[in-house]
Amino acid sequence: MCELLGMSANVPTDIVFSFTGLMQRGGRTGPHRDGWGIGFYEGRGLRIFQDPQASSESEVAQLVQRYPIKSEVVIGHIRQANVGKVCLVNTHPFSRELWGRNWCFAHNGQLAGLTGSSSFYRPVGDTDSEAAFCDLLNRVRRAFPEPVSVEVLLPVLVAACSSYRQLGVFNCLLSDGDWLFSFCSSKLAHITRRAPFGPAQLKDADLKVDFQAETTPDDVVTVIATEPLTDNEQWSRYEPGEWRLWRRGECVASGKA
Amino acid sequence: MCELLGMSANVPTDIVFSFTGLMQRGGRTGPHRDGWGIGFYEGRGLRIFQDPQASSESEVAQLVQRYPIKSEVVIGHIRQANVGKVCLVNTHPFSRELWGRNWCFAHNGQLAGLTGSSSFYRPVGDTDSEAAFCDLLNRVRRAFPEPVSVEVLLPVLVAACSSYRQLGVFNCLLSDGDWLFSFCSSKLAHITRRAPFGPAQLKDADLKVDFQAETTPDDVVTVIATEPLTDNEQWSRYEPGEWRLWRRGECVASGKA
Repeated sequence: MCELLGMSANVPTDIVFSFTGLMQRGGRTGPHRDGWGIGFYEGRGLRIFQDPQASSESEVAQLVQRYPIKSEVVIGHIRQANVGKVCLVNTHPFSRELWGRNWCFAHNGQLAGLTGSSSFYRPVGDTDSEAAFCDLLNRVRRAFPEPVSVEVLLPVLVAACSSYRQLGVFNCLLSDGDWLFSFCSSKLAHITRRAPFGPAQLKDADLKVDFQAETTPDDVVTVIATEPLTDNEQWSRYEPGEWRLWRRGECVASGKA
Repeated sequence: MCELLGMSANVPTDIVFSFTGLMQRGGRTGPHRDGWGIGFYEGRGLRIFQDPQASSESEVAQLVQRYPIKSEVVIGHIRQANVGKVCLVNTHPFSRELWGRNWCFAHNGQLAGLTGSSSFYRPVGDTDSEAAFCDLLNRVRRAFPEPVSVEVLLPVLVAACSSYRQLGVFNCLLSDGDWLFSFCSSKLAHITRRAPFGPAQLKDADLKVDFQAETTPDDVVTVIATEPLTDNEQWSRYEPGEWRLWRRGECVASGKA
């Protein structure tokens, strides 16, 4: 299994604190030794750092922890391989261009019987996760050859996720840089931080941050993770089948499949 | 204008030496202050580092110079913006998936009258370069919906590049991770290093490397750049209209459009 990390914010926000917590689970406090990756949107641009090495030992991960890249949408992942060998091409998050936007996707779980499509988007590697991402984009493109709003798109996303969930475990994060869609089949949690901000203490590393000092009163920042990353704050757990659409830090739509 | 850097090798080779030379031109010995990027293939996986900041001041560029990523195919670029604003989404190299492979592209020059297509691949940013890349992939996909060998593909690539050349200046590098295609409309040079290896001295930085100590007798490594990167070796310049296809360090096909 793997762990997911997502962020949606209304101002460019650095995710160093949460990323540092997650990275510990990549070989130190957790077993996810088979690579990690994180995608940061800057406008419509997407910057992905990734490594098939354990995150707790990766030099690229150290750079990302040192370097406060500010972003409004982030998707991160650490991997414990079950399907597909350990190599760069099987490392999340995956990305593809659709409608002239960069789409980014990460998955936690395991799917049976989903193989690479011979349709438009095709997997480069051999994970069930990338196969699901390609299948999902192929469904979107078939339904809507031209761009539509995410509100119009949502039923297609939810239907696709519901069908993957029939094949196993399917927790995922998906974004086009504007919105962040999250689907929970078994395990996902979220927290929205807004004024008054307080201190937060990581579970997985001896690191505390006082968000009060790092933020302005109007900031709204939501973090999504497989397991809560801090132990002094109240995270909300998704129910199985629950999906949420985030934009600029706020939950703008939700439902249950 | 911009500068290109390409590498094709028959063993995973680090490009730190050449990259260090190129990076100096990004704001120190050259005027290319508007971003830089470099894509490394690891098998079918593609790892892109990029930054809209000047390469001579970029922290990510420093990581890449410190971190000897070994690869058989590399495409790098430093940018002096003429079309499209300075931001991540306009930073080369660009990549798209086609036929289940990651394709990577960088361009030096300027094209008039080429706009984003409403076909399958669409630009995310607003550069002429990304528009050309999308147009080229759309032509390939139209001609060959299913994968063909690069030998079969070549006429389509050459015809596309020849047509872009009519619109301005079009020097480019393109790869799918296996082969590296290069097209020169005005300026491009290459060098193939093989045994007996000797020392090389960068033009743009006080850095010398003795390739003898870094290689085995069977290594073949070709480096391609807009301008020669070393001043004690014999680089060959492409003629205008010349294209070359490289694979595992060797030129396997060439011609003149």
